[in-house]
Amino acid sequence: MEIALVGIGKIAVDQHVPAIDASPDWKLAATVSRHGTVDGVPAYTDFTAMLQERPEIRVVSLCLPPVPRFAYAAEAIRAGRHVMLEKPPGATLSECHALEALARAHRVSLYATWHSRQAEQVAAARAFLAAAPLKRLEVRWREDVRHWHPGQDWIFEPGGMGVFDPGINALSIVTEILPDPIHLTTAELRFPENRQTPISADMAFFHPQGAEVTAHFDWLAEGAPEWTIEAETEAGYMLLEDGGAKLTIDGAAPEAAPPGLTGEYPRLYAQMAALVQAGGIDMDLAPMRHVADAFTLGRRVSVAPFHW
Amino acid sequence: MEIALVGIGKIAVDQHVPAIDASPDWKLAATVSRHGTVDGVPAYTDFTAMLQERPEIRVVSLCLPPVPRFAYAAEAIRAGRHVMLEKPPGATLSECHALEALARAHRVSLYATWHSRQAEQVAAARAFLAAAPLKRLEVRWREDVRHWHPGQDWIFEPGGMGVFDPGINALSIVTEILPDPIHLTTAELRFPENRQTPISADMAFFHPQGAEVTAHFDWLAEGAPEWTIEAETEAGYMLLEDGGAKLTIDGAAPEAAPPGLTGEYPRLYAQMAALVQAGGIDMDLAPMRHVADAFTLGRRVSVAPFHW
Repeated sequence: MEIALVGIGKIAVDQHVPAIDASPDWKLAATVSRHGTVDGVPAYTDFTAMLQERPEIRVVSLCLPPVPRFAYAAEAIRAGRHVMLEKPPGATLSECHALEALARAHRVSLYATWHSRQAEQVAAARAFLAAAPLKRLEVRWREDVRHWHPGQDWIFEPGGMGVFDPGINALSIVTEILPDPIHLTTAELRFPENRQTPISADMAFFHPQGAEVTAHFDWLAEGAPEWTIEAETEAGYMLLEDGGAKLTIDGAAPEAAPPGLTGEYPRLYAQMAALVQAGGIDMDLAPMRHVADAFTLGRRVSVAPFHW
Repeated sequence: MEIALVGIGKIAVDQHVPAIDASPDWKLAATVSRHGTVDGVPAYTDFTAMLQERPEIRVVSLCLPPVPRFAYAAEAIRAGRHVMLEKPPGATLSECHALEALARAHRVSLYATWHSRQAEQVAAARAFLAAAPLKRLEVRWREDVRHWHPGQDWIFEPGGMGVFDPGINALSIVTEILPDPIHLTTAELRFPENRQTPISADMAFFHPQGAEVTAHFDWLAEGAPEWTIEAETEAGYMLLEDGGAKLTIDGAAPEAAPPGLTGEYPRLYAQMAALVQAGGIDMDLAPMRHVADAFTLGRRVSVAPFHW
């Protein structure tokens, strides 16, 4: 199937283009971006023009920042195209609900992707926790924003989500691997006094069986990043590291899963192919709801200004 | 049907008790509150004890503040009781989703009430807008917090929602009367520097037909409150005033509706009776999503401290 990629920035070049190139399902048939292009692929700067001139492209993948994403997604759906959304799927929950309704009305597929859910060991962690009553779960998601988002001022603007931009990856894994629903009870969000989004945050959750569930996000951690979820359970100690790539249970690696597709983005594109085939919609907003809950219920603390 | 009322504060005494007393459907059979009681009604301070000692009470109405509400609602549902929730239905969207899943699992009714949707002229406004293409809609919701919420510090604490506590009433009407879905595009939230929730806010929304939709909430408006929604349409100018109680189209009152139940809370309790009868769940979270969107996407501005 031919696909168009919209928003040719770092994530598109690093992840989407290689995943599409390596996939047997997809052919990158166009890009749309103000500045970015991909060698050998027809490049558009006007999305409407691309939709009109390339009716054979039935699927559009949107990797621009969340705030402008709705307008592109709605236009694509109205033009009868299937749509794949980078995470988070939008700037507001309400626009995501509206998009889903629009996709149903136009009978096209819509996929809110959460790439971290496709990390190598997430499925194994989910299988372990399904049969292991939880006592305690702690998320530690610490990285250096200057290294991972150099100069990306939009993440500190309203709607950019701040430290929840990486944090939502952790929340997407947690909501995938826990068999029970959780919800925020308290949070503290630290806003640099010259910025509109938090640079660090702590969250505590209610768990229906009384387990202690917390998450700690920090964007000022220098050196190697920590993307860890650890869980104490009645069946042992689970450590999910490297953003879901590495898993140990009581210190030992679980049996290797049968070989399959490797890599988060190749799996996302395989999922999208299956979704289009089946005419399905996958618009799970749970990770984004937890972030909205943190902004709504969290205690705001003003901290030192942030400069790149 | 016998009903228990939990959280005997201002809203319970002013609205819930008279509505239950006047209803042919309900009998107030118990109250649960730390301090409040209702003359002639058995009063409990322990919710668990009430549920255990009064198995004949099948329905529970919760009017305590949003933050503690989830624990009561979940306990009631687990005890097989039908539950009615004051607005907003919880402190987080995720807990409301969890409650709905719990109610389905226990096959009980759950009703997220939005009392302003039951105001006298809301249905007429909805009927008018259904056939009147929208050009502009403006919400102006201005009141004196010192008069309407005297000393209620919880509304300025995390989760208390601040000016969105009344503002969500306006949003519940707007989402009821507009035939098209809207979503927030920009917002400005003004936080007193000594408080955790905003004291005023402005919101601007995307409307699928391009109408200009805005909302303005102010808690520092002295004198008479203004609870107004005005709409310019291709079929005339609609003015919905007094929180939904008064409607004019191009300056004239519409034909009177056939006589029915009068008052917001009597209608809510009639709805709850019908819901229990039908075994239904009504958990529309749209107004709360717009508030969460405002906290997530809104620009935060620090303003003068607030003191009672």
